[in-house]
Amino acid sequence: MVSVEEASSIVFSHLFEPRLETVAFAEAVDKVLAETIVADRDFPPFDRVSMDGIAISFVEWEAGRRIFSVQDIQAAGMKQKSLGDRQHCLEVMTGAILPTGADAVIPYEDIEINDGSATILIEKVRLGQNVHKQGQDAKALSVLLEPGILLSPAEIALLAAVGKSNVQVFAYPSTAIVSSGDELVAVQDTPEPHQIRRSNTFAIQSAMKTMGWEGTVWHLPDNREQMLDTVKRISASFDIIILSGGVSKGRFDFVPEVLEEVGITKLFHRVNQRPAKPFWFGVSKKGTIVFALPGNPVSTFMCFYRYIKPWLFRSVGVKNNTMKAVLAKDFSFAGSLVYFLQVSVQNENGMLMAYPVEGGGSGDFANLKNVDGFLELPSHKEKFLTGEVFPYIPFR
Amino acid sequence: MVSVEEASSIVFSHLFEPRLETVAFAEAVDKVLAETIVADRDFPPFDRVSMDGIAISFVEWEAGRRIFSVQDIQAAGMKQKSLGDRQHCLEVMTGAILPTGADAVIPYEDIEINDGSATILIEKVRLGQNVHKQGQDAKALSVLLEPGILLSPAEIALLAAVGKSNVQVFAYPSTAIVSSGDELVAVQDTPEPHQIRRSNTFAIQSAMKTMGWEGTVWHLPDNREQMLDTVKRISASFDIIILSGGVSKGRFDFVPEVLEEVGITKLFHRVNQRPAKPFWFGVSKKGTIVFALPGNPVSTFMCFYRYIKPWLFRSVGVKNNTMKAVLAKDFSFAGSLVYFLQVSVQNENGMLMAYPVEGGGSGDFANLKNVDGFLELPSHKEKFLTGEVFPYIPFR
Repeated sequence: MVSVEEASSIVFSHLFEPRLETVAFAEAVDKVLAETIVADRDFPPFDRVSMDGIAISFVEWEAGRRIFSVQDIQAAGMKQKSLGDRQHCLEVMTGAILPTGADAVIPYEDIEINDGSATILIEKVRLGQNVHKQGQDAKALSVLLEPGILLSPAEIALLAAVGKSNVQVFAYPSTAIVSSGDELVAVQDTPEPHQIRRSNTFAIQSAMKTMGWEGTVWHLPDNREQMLDTVKRISASFDIIILSGGVSKGRFDFVPEVLEEVGITKLFHRVNQRPAKPFWFGVSKKGTIVFALPGNPVSTFMCFYRYIKPWLFRSVGVKNNTMKAVLAKDFSFAGSLVYFLQVSVQNENGMLMAYPVEGGGSGDFANLKNVDGFLELPSHKEKFLTGEVFPYIPFR
Repeated sequence: MVSVEEASSIVFSHLFEPRLETVAFAEAVDKVLAETIVADRDFPPFDRVSMDGIAISFVEWEAGRRIFSVQDIQAAGMKQKSLGDRQHCLEVMTGAILPTGADAVIPYEDIEINDGSATILIEKVRLGQNVHKQGQDAKALSVLLEPGILLSPAEIALLAAVGKSNVQVFAYPSTAIVSSGDELVAVQDTPEPHQIRRSNTFAIQSAMKTMGWEGTVWHLPDNREQMLDTVKRISASFDIIILSGGVSKGRFDFVPEVLEEVGITKLFHRVNQRPAKPFWFGVSKKGTIVFALPGNPVSTFMCFYRYIKPWLFRSVGVKNNTMKAVLAKDFSFAGSLVYFLQVSVQNENGMLMAYPVEGGGSGDFANLKNVDGFLELPSHKEKFLTGEVFPYIPFR
């Protein structure tokens, strides 16, 4: 048996080697950037008008001029014009390039235009006002985004702005999600009284889906020979195998020995935690990584969010800061192991308050519908008091 | 001009009428449930063994018996067996139905089996221990999930458990995302010095994509006739139109008048906020809803997360609790309008601390890469102090 800390450290020292793939930028949201993105030009690329109004020469304003005759219009998308005569102005539109010779923009609400002349109605004008200066946001060739960034809509727009119509992202490993247990029937089947439907593998598959990670669902019977056969085939074709069930002490829990028989070396079996104590982890010589999780639904789910998701993110260089939350109600737990407490979390005045969810044993998914995540309670204490802060693993 | 509160209230009182669609349960993650899900049977459906070990009759233990002869094995997936003789026990596996006549499970670690007899090594046994009682999580026909729930992986597993292989979810409205502005060129093009690439529409499209909402991208030239023509076609074929640009006071800002000309009634134009003051909102007689946002990238982005996303969620009945965060640094803003401050947010001991991001004017997306969201600062004050709590609109 290893501690939660040891288990994490072993898992995180067996990362996968991600391959690269090129995708259309508009498809890249929620994927992880694999290349460095530099500014192809200054941003903004020119002194850009940021209000509709008139562009003037500031020295002329300083010299006392308040009335400027309108020489021309500089609309967005027009080639740069020139303020020929400093006593003139150009009407300028938001997004337009600032005409040469002009260095301040007075918005329409602060002027009056009559008979081709604009009168400025305000008392204060600043040099460069309402002009978004060339290079203010970023200089040409400066680094905008580094590999390992999880691309959000803001970054997709930035890729568009620099003309990255195709972008390199990390490909996630090919993954089999495998249930075992003879009590399990297919979702569309009507179970016998002693049977239940498969659900763990779909929980994992959809959790992966929300990350843009695809997984293929399999099922193994509790029969050693058939299990061996199928696991052999799966381990030959997938980078990663996530198993659920068959790792405990039962007489038909063949998973650990079958995995070792097909050449997956055990790195740990059993973690000092509740739920999910029987968690098994191993790798093969050729690099297949196997997470064998207990079959209990909540255990499977906790292990995915506590170990597998952070492991994937580390493998592709995403910084995955641990969240924290505040225990909102006293809780006691006697047992020298890490306890993953099911909690419902409320944002109360900016503070994440974690309320223990009653009846949150390591049960079924019916339990989890009011749960937002797990609070990781350390093993060295028994009483956990309102107001204490612990790591929080959300799953919504 | 309306206040932010008035704008919200007008937007939220023009929800769309969602259609229903049926999808395979495994595809339903991040979609919004449109039907009530009831338990098709008790959960667990039978008294379920939750540890590998032996099942005994508790009265026999109470009467002093510590050695039980092993009668048989009850594995997971086997039909229910019976403890024929109370002095006997059955080996039972996690997930198995508890044999009739048995009412407590002693795990393997607490027993020793020799020559077909199990000796209990511990001093304390509870009635019903290590048995997950039938109906403990949910009773048959009880409501498990209600319409309006955003389906997370936990709910997908629950749908699997109750055999909902197909499930009714809300279909999101067909949506056109339309940019305007003659300065804009396509992403794959090399802009002239006075041009920039389109990015706003892709920011919105990918923000929608993360919600499972599809949008089609269009572009309009700053030409009144062509704009009218295209807007007519778009408003005939889409439920929702999100425009970016052309709503300000510029000479080529034809969007508001073109929209009114095709029969979209203005409900407001201009909101007392920064950024995104020129925000325009309207509806047509046949129910087309139009959000016309200012073309400034950050304005567009803010409006999407502050108005459009909550509007969509309300339309399909999702509860969308406002988040809050704590200002981490004093900030001043003189101007009697709501200021959406760009912030980077850290979880510090469970508290969401919002740090103002420098240079966060209503600029380009290059600005937003270090920003996590907007803090909504009310209009009635000028000084905002460290430690004060404000609504927080995250976009990551």
